[in-house]
Amino acid sequence: MAKGRLTRWRGGLLVPWIARRMVPEGRTSLARAGPRLDGLAFSGTIAISRIMSDSSPFSPAAGPSAAGPDAGTVYLVGAGPGDPDLLTVRAARLIATADVIVHDGLVGDGVLALAPAGAELISVAKKRDRHSVPQEGINALLVEHAKAGRDVVRLKGGDPFIFGRGGEELEACRVAGIMVEVVPGISAAMGCAAAANLPLTHRDVASAVTFVAGQCKGLSDQNWAGLAGAGRTLVIYMGVATADDIADKLMADGLSPDTPVVVLENGTLPEQRALRTLLADLGDMVHREDVRSPAVIVVGNVAGLADASDRLGNRAGGLQMLDILRGKEGLS
Amino acid sequence: MAKGRLTRWRGGLLVPWIARRMVPEGRTSLARAGPRLDGLAFSGTIAISRIMSDSSPFSPAAGPSAAGPDAGTVYLVGAGPGDPDLLTVRAARLIATADVIVHDGLVGDGVLALAPAGAELISVAKKRDRHSVPQEGINALLVEHAKAGRDVVRLKGGDPFIFGRGGEELEACRVAGIMVEVVPGISAAMGCAAAANLPLTHRDVASAVTFVAGQCKGLSDQNWAGLAGAGRTLVIYMGVATADDIADKLMADGLSPDTPVVVLENGTLPEQRALRTLLADLGDMVHREDVRSPAVIVVGNVAGLADASDRLGNRAGGLQMLDILRGKEGLS
Repeated sequence: MAKGRLTRWRGGLLVPWIARRMVPEGRTSLARAGPRLDGLAFSGTIAISRIMSDSSPFSPAAGPSAAGPDAGTVYLVGAGPGDPDLLTVRAARLIATADVIVHDGLVGDGVLALAPAGAELISVAKKRDRHSVPQEGINALLVEHAKAGRDVVRLKGGDPFIFGRGGEELEACRVAGIMVEVVPGISAAMGCAAAANLPLTHRDVASAVTFVAGQCKGLSDQNWAGLAGAGRTLVIYMGVATADDIADKLMADGLSPDTPVVVLENGTLPEQRALRTLLADLGDMVHREDVRSPAVIVVGNVAGLADASDRLGNRAGGLQMLDILRGKEGLS
Repeated sequence: MAKGRLTRWRGGLLVPWIARRMVPEGRTSLARAGPRLDGLAFSGTIAISRIMSDSSPFSPAAGPSAAGPDAGTVYLVGAGPGDPDLLTVRAARLIATADVIVHDGLVGDGVLALAPAGAELISVAKKRDRHSVPQEGINALLVEHAKAGRDVVRLKGGDPFIFGRGGEELEACRVAGIMVEVVPGISAAMGCAAAANLPLTHRDVASAVTFVAGQCKGLSDQNWAGLAGAGRTLVIYMGVATADDIADKLMADGLSPDTPVVVLENGTLPEQRALRTLLADLGDMVHREDVRSPAVIVVGNVAGLADASDRLGNRAGGLQMLDILRGKEGLS
């Protein structure tokens, strides 16, 4: 595979990376920003004069020589939502010429079928409740193959930088001196929304759209307050297994139980379904309809615009739902 | 051009659309949800039993006959962030076989070069401070060409459903009985983030990412409270012209003046730039560096992870910025 066009921001390619590990005076913690942010993302003002220089601290994308002249390149590639036609042209080309493809479980057979006959395909599917390759193992795998001189396509469902842990893999490759290129993908929200004719923003309905993940860390550790509500669309990735808790969490944050929600299952694939209900019924509907991953949940008034089947009444029944809502809202 | 594979959600293709215009008893306004939401997105509980039926109110995508058997199809296609290699495979194929292409100003020459020699290219570029084709005119143009039997590719920068007004064009086509297919695109946030090695979410830094637009309606009409802050990434589209106001707005909402921000200009194109500073300096930096559209502004600690040039010190100087921050934060 030809060395890809490794686009770098102007002025960045030739500037050596300088590790900056200044500890701001008078501050004891940089935890707010995480380890890569030392020297930039402090929470006080004391440190500001320390970073006033016009430096260009490019990250250690490093020359190819950092890991040896024969090292391969790692391509962190978004595989999109499922339909192979929704790969980018660049992603399709990289897959078709890859030496090694390291892929998630969400990457479908239609996409993998584009790989050349001689390519090595390695699945690192993560499974709930089952031991699978830990992130550190995936990082090490990418580095190991690249150091052996092979170009590696790391294929991730959706986009590498939207709940894909691409940032961690990028960092691991950089630390090892491996060249990396990130190729964006159609994220599940956009793919599923297009297939369901659901505008995520709309001049009259929603001017902000937010993506969160139902299984990103623990749900209870995440603060979603205010992300849904009037004029706002909230898209929840990987939320099927925790749909009950998600509905409770959003209502506890003050969102109305009668907010429209739509669940987009297998979006862009032939077996896709779009099922609509109200927030208070979300968990029950997911169980009634036996919704499975992959699916995204869209919360907000744009859900009312989608091509979807209304599933509120299947078993819950109108009066029962009315009772639930009265109870939740304190109406009599 | 072959009639595309018009993916529909399962069960949806054959179900006739039934306009439902119930007015919930005891309620006088359905304004919360907009006109397409009648009957679903009410804000009270009285109406709930009225929509309990297991109906499937698919939208009027309608059979081809609705606008005559010879009518063409309108494809609402995302053109991605600029680099033609970041088109989806499906978009590239549709462009290459289009009869008519109606495109925005943000769609670059590299993408338009893929059109066949015989295709009619119509620009409906929107320009600030200049009279250009109004949205209603664009809607009418799409319908007119489709009714004349031509397949129309409506090409929009980024994704059609992220600040693309795709929802309005979809609706106009449906009302006219024209078949529509929506093809998602790489939205500017994802495209620019990938090119700048900037993970929009990161396990240690941000678990939510929100998109807003600096020119979507008036800035002052938009409520962005809480969308940026700890653990959250905010991406602002079309914010260059209003960068001063954006910084003021975010700080007025309580965001710290020393929040890292990065401006990604011409992301994915050869002339791309990534310029980083702190929120309090955002407007000044945009002027100093003469940042031009197209650009996105990323606000939050992930900005510290990007491959970017730090531009805080260029003219403001450390001590001056320190003074500004002390003044804004009330420190002495």
